[in-house]
Amino acid sequence: MLFNPDWPAYNIIEAAADRIQTFIHRTPVLTSRTLNRKFQCEIYFKCENFQKAGAFKIRGATNAILALNIDQAEKGVATHSSGNHAQAVAMAARIRKIPAYIVMPRNSPEVKKKAVQEYGAHITECDPTLEAREKILETICEETGATFIPPYNDYRIIGGQATAAMELHQDVHDLDYIIAPVGGGGLLSGTALVTYQMSRETSVIGAEPAGADDAYRSVRAGEIIPSENPDTIAEGLLTSLGDKTFPIIKELTEEIITVSDDEIIKAMRLIWERMKIVVEPSAATGLAAIMNQPETFENKRVGIIISGGNVDLDNLPFH
Amino acid sequence: MLFNPDWPAYNIIEAAADRIQTFIHRTPVLTSRTLNRKFQCEIYFKCENFQKAGAFKIRGATNAILALNIDQAEKGVATHSSGNHAQAVAMAARIRKIPAYIVMPRNSPEVKKKAVQEYGAHITECDPTLEAREKILETICEETGATFIPPYNDYRIIGGQATAAMELHQDVHDLDYIIAPVGGGGLLSGTALVTYQMSRETSVIGAEPAGADDAYRSVRAGEIIPSENPDTIAEGLLTSLGDKTFPIIKELTEEIITVSDDEIIKAMRLIWERMKIVVEPSAATGLAAIMNQPETFENKRVGIIISGGNVDLDNLPFH
Repeated sequence: MLFNPDWPAYNIIEAAADRIQTFIHRTPVLTSRTLNRKFQCEIYFKCENFQKAGAFKIRGATNAILALNIDQAEKGVATHSSGNHAQAVAMAARIRKIPAYIVMPRNSPEVKKKAVQEYGAHITECDPTLEAREKILETICEETGATFIPPYNDYRIIGGQATAAMELHQDVHDLDYIIAPVGGGGLLSGTALVTYQMSRETSVIGAEPAGADDAYRSVRAGEIIPSENPDTIAEGLLTSLGDKTFPIIKELTEEIITVSDDEIIKAMRLIWERMKIVVEPSAATGLAAIMNQPETFENKRVGIIISGGNVDLDNLPFH
Repeated sequence: MLFNPDWPAYNIIEAAADRIQTFIHRTPVLTSRTLNRKFQCEIYFKCENFQKAGAFKIRGATNAILALNIDQAEKGVATHSSGNHAQAVAMAARIRKIPAYIVMPRNSPEVKKKAVQEYGAHITECDPTLEAREKILETICEETGATFIPPYNDYRIIGGQATAAMELHQDVHDLDYIIAPVGGGGLLSGTALVTYQMSRETSVIGAEPAGADDAYRSVRAGEIIPSENPDTIAEGLLTSLGDKTFPIIKELTEEIITVSDDEIIKAMRLIWERMKIVVEPSAATGLAAIMNQPETFENKRVGIIISGGNVDLDNLPFH
């Protein structure tokens, strides 16, 4: 296996953990006897739904924003995001007391727009296409001098997201598997990097919606094949891998398991009903992967990163 | 204040705690900075939604069932309940490996019927009136010799439910207030008893749906005035006080605060969105009471018993 020297090494991830620890929660690891019995394995849920701003995204955003130098920082930060990354950048900017400019698609869930506003960020709405988002963002950065904080394709972001799996390995030893959702790949590549350096016997698996399966196809093809018209209920995972996240995932993950929206909803319902915690569809892909391939995980110790809990209670998929 | 020698004293509640501790979870106490900021007080949520079978009811049922002598126990136990108490008796009977006969109204939530079945109990369905429930239960007890495990009006049940507040006082000192939901009064009377004996400076408050406000009216009148046609979304709180729970509540609680269904739903949504935990409407009455009388709780340390998390995800009140 090739470990590229550009990738965040253990000491870099540890530095990220030190940098952000005052500002984030160390989230709990929960277990459920009912679910363990049902799937015949030991599942350890790393609950980033309890994280500040309701998702792991605050880890990467805080790491990237705290690492800016003073001249950069005072001009503020900007990003485009339909959801959790927007909240994360808004909150991290508030921590550093600098302006945040957030470009959000008009059709983002109301609850996410409201949260971004409450953190004091400036929102600019745009058409729900990547092109529209990027164009408006560029204009904002030019006008204000704000630094763009990418949602995933950035080593500082990846190093920050890696701290979730770092904590899981500190709390639970000898995992056979660790499963993380994959959209743009920030969380999965961070998880893979830190697992390779902390617990080499643990296999890293990406859980990806079948309707946005670019990681699955890209890893097979050996090159990035972005999703065209991705469609899944896991709206946090619509994005495609980037040139920083793809090589790490290709090299350091064992497999990408794709799951249907039906499986995601079933897994989400199980987690809500049995564990009494609110998780978003993206966060349920890990358990959905176990439902999809139960034989792989039988009698194994499996860590699952529950990525977040930001759902629109007015639009739940249960009926 | 009068402390009746029949009431469970501290050593009786402690014995209950010892008896049941192997079989129940010590549930966590959660806090939310957002909610504390919003209501200008320090709230400590005792999370019985994470309890076995999803509610505090397992405490009382396990205490009562483990205390049966062998002759009684082998004939089994029986009860009528539309919800959490049914699950609790079914589960506690399984712990003791004895039969459980549960009478449930036909219109009970599917998720609760299913859970009772999964614990291996015999379900008999009946019309949704107290009369119908009691009549069928009587027949079953006569035929099988099973012991009736009452849902609340019983000192062993009250002593068992008291252990939730006991744990809260052990984990959080110097509470100014402790708020528990009130239906039949098992949880509230237990909370009041243990608080009086462990932390006399803490005022105990009952939170009651306005549509089932028999405790509010009974305490005012100085005698039990049962609800007629109670109606509230908090279906766990439709029952009225009994002759064991009423005197304790009258003597040892400071106030019953009534809350509207709208307030309950608003509080429930706040808890789901901000704390990312699944709580049932009954469990949200405590926060609803703070929303209803914020000035009472300003700058105070307030414990809230989150009674349970058993909701029917197909019938949520959010829209």
